[in-house]
Amino acid sequence: MAPSTPRLVVPIDLRKKPWEQKLPLHNRWHPQIPPVAEVKAGEVFRVEMADWTGGVIKDDNSSLDIKFIDLSTVHYLSGPIRVVDEDGIPAKPGDLLAIEILNLGPLPGDEWGFTASFDRENGGGFLTDHFPCATKAIWYFEGIYAYSPHIPGVRFPGLTHPGVIGTAPSMELLNIWNEREREVEENGLQTLKLCEVVHSRPLANLPTTKGCLLGKIEGSTPEWEKIAMEAARTIPGRENGGNCDIKNLSRGSKIYLPVFVDGANFSTGDMHFSQGDGEISFCGAIEMSGFLELKCQLIRGGMKEYLTPMGPTPLHVNPIFEIGPVEPRFSEWLVFEGISVDESGRQHYLDATVAYKRAVLNAIDYLSKFGYSKEQVYLLLSCCPCEGRISGIVDSPNACATLAIPTAIFDQDIRPKSSKVPVGPRLVRKPDVLKCTYDGNLPVTRNPSAST
Amino acid sequence: MAPSTPRLVVPIDLRKKPWEQKLPLHNRWHPQIPPVAEVKAGEVFRVEMADWTGGVIKDDNSSLDIKFIDLSTVHYLSGPIRVVDEDGIPAKPGDLLAIEILNLGPLPGDEWGFTASFDRENGGGFLTDHFPCATKAIWYFEGIYAYSPHIPGVRFPGLTHPGVIGTAPSMELLNIWNEREREVEENGLQTLKLCEVVHSRPLANLPTTKGCLLGKIEGSTPEWEKIAMEAARTIPGRENGGNCDIKNLSRGSKIYLPVFVDGANFSTGDMHFSQGDGEISFCGAIEMSGFLELKCQLIRGGMKEYLTPMGPTPLHVNPIFEIGPVEPRFSEWLVFEGISVDESGRQHYLDATVAYKRAVLNAIDYLSKFGYSKEQVYLLLSCCPCEGRISGIVDSPNACATLAIPTAIFDQDIRPKSSKVPVGPRLVRKPDVLKCTYDGNLPVTRNPSAST
Amino acid sequence: MAPSTPRLVVPIDLRKKPWEQKLPLHNRWHPQIPPVAEVKAGEVFRVEMADWTGGVIKDDNSSLDIKFIDLSTVHYLSGPIRVVDEDGIPAKPGDLLAIEILNLGPLPGDEWGFTASFDRENGGGFLTDHFPCATKAIWYFEGIYAYSPHIPGVRFPGLTHPGVIGTAPSMELLNIWNEREREVEENGLQTLKLCEVVHSRPLANLPTTKGCLLGKIEGSTPEWEKIAMEAARTIPGRENGGNCDIKNLSRGSKIYLPVFVDGANFSTGDMHFSQGDGEISFCGAIEMSGFLELKCQLIRGGMKEYLTPMGPTPLHVNPIFEIGPVEPRFSEWLVFEGISVDESGRQHYLDATVAYKRAVLNAIDYLSKFGYSKEQVYLLLSCCPCEGRISGIVDSPNACATLAIPTAIFDQDIRPKSSKVPVGPRLVRKPDVLKCTYDGNLPVTRNPSAST
Amino acid sequence: MAPSTPRLVVPIDLRKKPWEQKLPLHNRWHPQIPPVAEVKAGEVFRVEMADWTGGVIKDDNSSLDIKFIDLSTVHYLSGPIRVVDEDGIPAKPGDLLAIEILNLGPLPGDEWGFTASFDRENGGGFLTDHFPCATKAIWYFEGIYAYSPHIPGVRFPGLTHPGVIGTAPSMELLNIWNEREREVEENGLQTLKLCEVVHSRPLANLPTTKGCLLGKIEGSTPEWEKIAMEAARTIPGRENGGNCDIKNLSRGSKIYLPVFVDGANFSTGDMHFSQGDGEISFCGAIEMSGFLELKCQLIRGGMKEYLTPMGPTPLHVNPIFEIGPVEPRFSEWLVFEGISVDESGRQHYLDATVAYKRAVLNAIDYLSKFGYSKEQVYLLLSCCPCEGRISGIVDSPNACATLAIPTAIFDQDIRPKSSKVPVGPRLVRKPDVLKCTYDGNLPVTRNPSAST
Repeated sequence: MAPSTPRLVVPIDLRKKPWEQKLPLHNRWHPQIPPVAEVKAGEVFRVEMADWTGGVIKDDNSSLDIKFIDLSTVHYLSGPIRVVDEDGIPAKPGDLLAIEILNLGPLPGDEWGFTASFDRENGGGFLTDHFPCATKAIWYFEGIYAYSPHIPGVRFPGLTHPGVIGTAPSMELLNIWNEREREVEENGLQTLKLCEVVHSRPLANLPTTKGCLLGKIEGSTPEWEKIAMEAARTIPGRENGGNCDIKNLSRGSKIYLPVFVDGANFSTGDMHFSQGDGEISFCGAIEMSGFLELKCQLIRGGMKEYLTPMGPTPLHVNPIFEIGPVEPRFSEWLVFEGISVDESGRQHYLDATVAYKRAVLNAIDYLSKFGYSKEQVYLLLSCCPCEGRISGIVDSPNACATLAIPTAIFDQDIRPKSSKVPVGPRLVRKPDVLKCTYDGNLPVTRNPSAST
Repeated sequence: MAPSTPRLVVPIDLRKKPWEQKLPLHNRWHPQIPPVAEVKAGEVFRVEMADWTGGVIKDDNSSLDIKFIDLSTVHYLSGPIRVVDEDGIPAKPGDLLAIEILNLGPLPGDEWGFTASFDRENGGGFLTDHFPCATKAIWYFEGIYAYSPHIPGVRFPGLTHPGVIGTAPSMELLNIWNEREREVEENGLQTLKLCEVVHSRPLANLPTTKGCLLGKIEGSTPEWEKIAMEAARTIPGRENGGNCDIKNLSRGSKIYLPVFVDGANFSTGDMHFSQGDGEISFCGAIEMSGFLELKCQLIRGGMKEYLTPMGPTPLHVNPIFEIGPVEPRFSEWLVFEGISVDESGRQHYLDATVAYKRAVLNAIDYLSKFGYSKEQVYLLLSCCPCEGRISGIVDSPNACATLAIPTAIFDQDIRPKSSKVPVGPRLVRKPDVLKCTYDGNLPVTRNPSAST
Repeated sequence: MAPSTPRLVVPIDLRKKPWEQKLPLHNRWHPQIPPVAEVKAGEVFRVEMADWTGGVIKDDNSSLDIKFIDLSTVHYLSGPIRVVDEDGIPAKPGDLLAIEILNLGPLPGDEWGFTASFDRENGGGFLTDHFPCATKAIWYFEGIYAYSPHIPGVRFPGLTHPGVIGTAPSMELLNIWNEREREVEENGLQTLKLCEVVHSRPLANLPTTKGCLLGKIEGSTPEWEKIAMEAARTIPGRENGGNCDIKNLSRGSKIYLPVFVDGANFSTGDMHFSQGDGEISFCGAIEMSGFLELKCQLIRGGMKEYLTPMGPTPLHVNPIFEIGPVEPRFSEWLVFEGISVDESGRQHYLDATVAYKRAVLNAIDYLSKFGYSKEQVYLLLSCCPCEGRISGIVDSPNACATLAIPTAIFDQDIRPKSSKVPVGPRLVRKPDVLKCTYDGNLPVTRNPSAST
Repeated sequence: MAPSTPRLVVPIDLRKKPWEQKLPLHNRWHPQIPPVAEVKAGEVFRVEMADWTGGVIKDDNSSLDIKFIDLSTVHYLSGPIRVVDEDGIPAKPGDLLAIEILNLGPLPGDEWGFTASFDRENGGGFLTDHFPCATKAIWYFEGIYAYSPHIPGVRFPGLTHPGVIGTAPSMELLNIWNEREREVEENGLQTLKLCEVVHSRPLANLPTTKGCLLGKIEGSTPEWEKIAMEAARTIPGRENGGNCDIKNLSRGSKIYLPVFVDGANFSTGDMHFSQGDGEISFCGAIEMSGFLELKCQLIRGGMKEYLTPMGPTPLHVNPIFEIGPVEPRFSEWLVFEGISVDESGRQHYLDATVAYKRAVLNAIDYLSKFGYSKEQVYLLLSCCPCEGRISGIVDSPNACATLAIPTAIFDQDIRPKSSKVPVGPRLVRKPDVLKCTYDGNLPVTRNPSAST
């Protein structure tokens, strides 16, 4: 009786480049990027997407593609998708756009993904000062499970989600973004002491015509030039949602996005088969192409009704969401603590970032005792369903962060025991992750106490 | 056949002051504080504890006790407890002390607790720049559940845990602490830009004889004076565990603490009936007196075997733990996002603390639409079983933090709906939290977009 | 590098009848039904399947198709699939065949299902003496969720699973089945008092050529006739697994099936989008077509190693399985008790079937107070993720069974409250289920205490 | 401000016999047993209880106490407790009494329990035809965990609950009970074929003065004699709740009991530290003394409002309940299937009792391969948190029942593996359960296929 098959509103042909797709992709946020499709509130529709690099990273035996990736081109997004209500009236600024993620997964025929860390000079990551080399691990999917030839001994169900989902910004909001990020890019090194500990460069990614793809806007036109010079890069999550990389936006979840322009014009991309909290290696999820099945609902005036702005304008809001009912379940967790004292022993003040960095470093060193290289663990903790918590944020001067790892993903018991850690041939795991050399000059952060 | 009743090794008489207890309490960390009890590996024993203030805060109708509390006296800890193995040989530095929390709860006859925020000039808290007043809410326990006359409409099962559990530091470790914290106290305001956003004062709490209690060390002796001048305050969690305020250290969990001195000499205190991740209002858990039933195991040499130091010395380690099997279960969560843009609209660089602050502020404003005052929500989010996650920490320049709140703790449906938020007399909730005036001069951080 | 897309070994074309499929289906168990496909241990493959009726039941406004269904034709199964090890050596009797369900779902373009109760004279069901009419409800799928126009006010995530998965029986096992079922069919009414309470007819479904489909065995041949006269019907689950209707055989589960013939020759079918424990209305799951992604592993000699026969021959075994990690999660449940006293008030002796019947009847009457017809609830409890437990089985003479219903599937709060059940127009739910008349003569079991 | 410590309304002194307690216990159901305490709706109160045998079973090295137990004396219950509303008006017949279990646990100083199987001639159990001997295993509690010297290699958190909680029956209801149970006792062997498979004797336990304890009713009086001759035994669960042995009535659950007499007069007892679904060995939970902290609420007229009678009178109802939020969590389960074919190979018709018996037998044989005796597993599956489900109840002629066992309770991996079950000295576990001889003449049911 009723139609139940999701209508495919954005198809992807994986044999084609992002700019060759039937509905061209885009990799910037700008209010003037025209919608490529329209959906009605209540209808179930399907959006396909390329992986965030648009197919640049290959299922092969080298991480050179990672090392030399042109990050000005990411993320390739599907959309914008215009939303109208049951009567055909478009979403309006001030509405709340509720998007329910009814289902998602890899694209048939493309059931693999990659987790990588960027070269320190080209993207970096949370621990790039420790791990400056580009690395890559390939993952293969067996239905809900992923395994990697490069990180043996683990297998886990995916908490699959889109890394990016967001509405188009208004021009006013776009200006706010560009201004505040330019400020941090230009003055950050002088004023933000944190950068000494979290070493990624650049501090922000400002608009650039390089690598810019604007959907239906024709290239090499004055309009394209203007928009490309204004359009926000997609790396950070912002008021419109965007690249929040929240692992819990999975099957059955419902996200409430603020609407800034007529039609809402939301875009999505950067599908993750699985990700750990923090996505620490930056290209840290299991990155893949994929599809979403979605249903939209409009809450008229809901932005004002439900989202209180926090900042100088009514646009300073953030999305909220409800978690879905089928997240993978784990009952046993091993948890690592970290406090806001850095690797040199220096005290930081209630700094959750430093505390989390330390918790992650602790976990990496611990797991490396069980037959893994540290690079393997770095990538594993980027993409497995581990949970990063801000446990204590008031006990001056130490923030306390925790990283909880489900023990069931390992094929060995990784808990401490009175007997020692098992050693021997069983634990010589091969091969390691795919790895390039680091050719830059920045000093590696060494753990003064590490034996190796 | 076998003895099964836990042996009471540290009793508390709630009618007595901390210094009057049969086994005197202490409120500092120092290797020379003598143990008050000894336990054998494998035996089940019981430790009782005062609430962290030692009974200063009352179940009454005023928050003056909070406003004028002397924080130099906290936390009153039970212990130190010396641990020996089955043969009577004490724990040694380099061992790992595994402590299993077999059971815990309030002390019979004292089934109540309090959640409070300190005055900005006397303790502060995560949002003290927004909420500078001392406030207090009383909670009553009905078995596993807590409810408050001051925050009506919620009731939840406790994720009960000790806020403080830690081993005695060695002199070397103590010196490291004092040095690094002195540095941040003395130079922090100049060098740490973070302080502009997280306004608590002081930056660190350095050793002081004021309010110092040292267990069996007699007061007014040269030994007491010397130790008091050296002994670390208990506010922050550190390498020995201590005041980590990790809500998941609950029934059935197992914590692995490094051993720094002969006998391990661990202490515990600061029982929390329940706490949210971050314990945001500082006195933010449901604070109570209580008991722990514990069992210890010694992993000889386990500190070296399992904990890799991260820092300049072999002492720069952190505890790890396993989560217990009976944490309260919730299937529906409403989640608030925050990014590292502060209330003034300024961009911070991958700062999880700022991102979490914003997520919390968003949640407070949201819930205040459902009939609560913001102070009520501030206290509620400090103590209810909410989860604070570092969702994205690599998408420069924005960290993305999330705060997940279980919807089942409310007696109304707090999820966004197409219809508006219900209004009317049903939602006029009385009374508000107990509240003092703020008499200081520091400016309150105002949300420029807030209507009130 | 590695192939990761599941190989499609059994395709289904929904426009074709079961006997027209490229790889013909079968609806009987017999060792001589030839395999239609072969898979290797370790490979990931895909099996598609028709719904159990082979497309007889339609997404329309009538339940006449249910009333007059020819049950001699069910279940249409995909397979048999022959399993060989990595070296090409087939599974052998005595092995254990581990099948991991990597993924599953509806067939694209066919995202709907039905739940029905049969006419008492043609199939019946657990409560057919109360509900003798054929009824039908249609469900539509929105990704992981299902909703029905016939049972409004509920929506739930599917615990999707194949109702039938089993290996081919050996001739010896087949003879055991036919003999014991013939005995119950022929003598059951005289000897089994239980039949007075659970009124389905026939008692067993014996081999018949009527409706028989035997895969690659050509019809109208002596071979076909012989096999058809011997081949076991697929209604009951048996030693080979088969129609166990275990709702937990869902994504990520792993079932260990005994192997009785060379190659194992397993078949599967009867996909359920969702089912409650017991599948009480018989056609009680949300029945659909669908696909499975599977991976097999052979445990050589594992049947003897792991499965102890319980009965007169080594063939009297049962499968075991492991539950997967992504079952829908619910934290609140309302539970109904039932004891082994029947509707007439008569005492039965430790009879879990009678106890469960009573628990279900209690639940139906309860939920019918919230705006539902009893037929709606009967179908709902057949297919929603409710749990049926044998809570007490030793307290003579009463067995105690419980039925637990997740409250989150309803759009209203169904828990008892001090105020009365809400009444009024909001709860007049339309339409009811699709329903035929019952034209038979068997008396309906009436609840002597029911008002209606 | 508010009182929060539970008021102790029924104290137990474990040094005293059941009939010596300050508030005398009772072991029968009868409307004329006078209440020993009164509680007000909304107040939090504490009820202590003896173990169900009143201290007859000892923590010693013999199971003779089990073998010769006088079952006419069980269960010793605390109560009756009369319930009045906030205005002092007692509960009335037709009301619903909601009892929330706020907390519970063992009595301090008595932290141990026992699991036993009765001699076949004196109580029996679900598998008494296989295991006719009296056996006993002692369990010791370490907070939330239990372990047994007699069943090594397992340790699990308790899903603690009262086996018995129920309201007093009216005289009318009592007559119904006695009549229907007498019928089954007198005629059951002739008419109930089930008894061939579930061999416990007697079929019912009818009123008797032997062993009778009636609380405040003085013994050796005509009144006592009359009541003793009428009062229902406590073995089976019935319309009033009673000995339902539902493991999920644990911390935080809320049970809704029908009220049959003025004041409701509910009683409780038979505390279980832990129990598996079915409590298969009859004395199958971890039996202990204990306490409950409770809160009552009266739903006036709620019996009619919420509970539809199912049977000849308005009294034919059953309780309902809500599950609490802190049940132990397990993510990995190994599940055993059983169908309604008995050990002789005979087919039973949709008989969930037979199917569950077979699932349990399968599990026992399976686990006995991992170093356990069958008696050990029988007791273990009686008391560990395993789940018994009615998976399929419509697939004639086979009911399908499943028994799910959490794998985390074992200190070894019990899942099937390609390698064989580990053998060798590690698995020689000692000692076995405490065991008596069986001196009766009834034949043991032997598994014809069992090697031993």
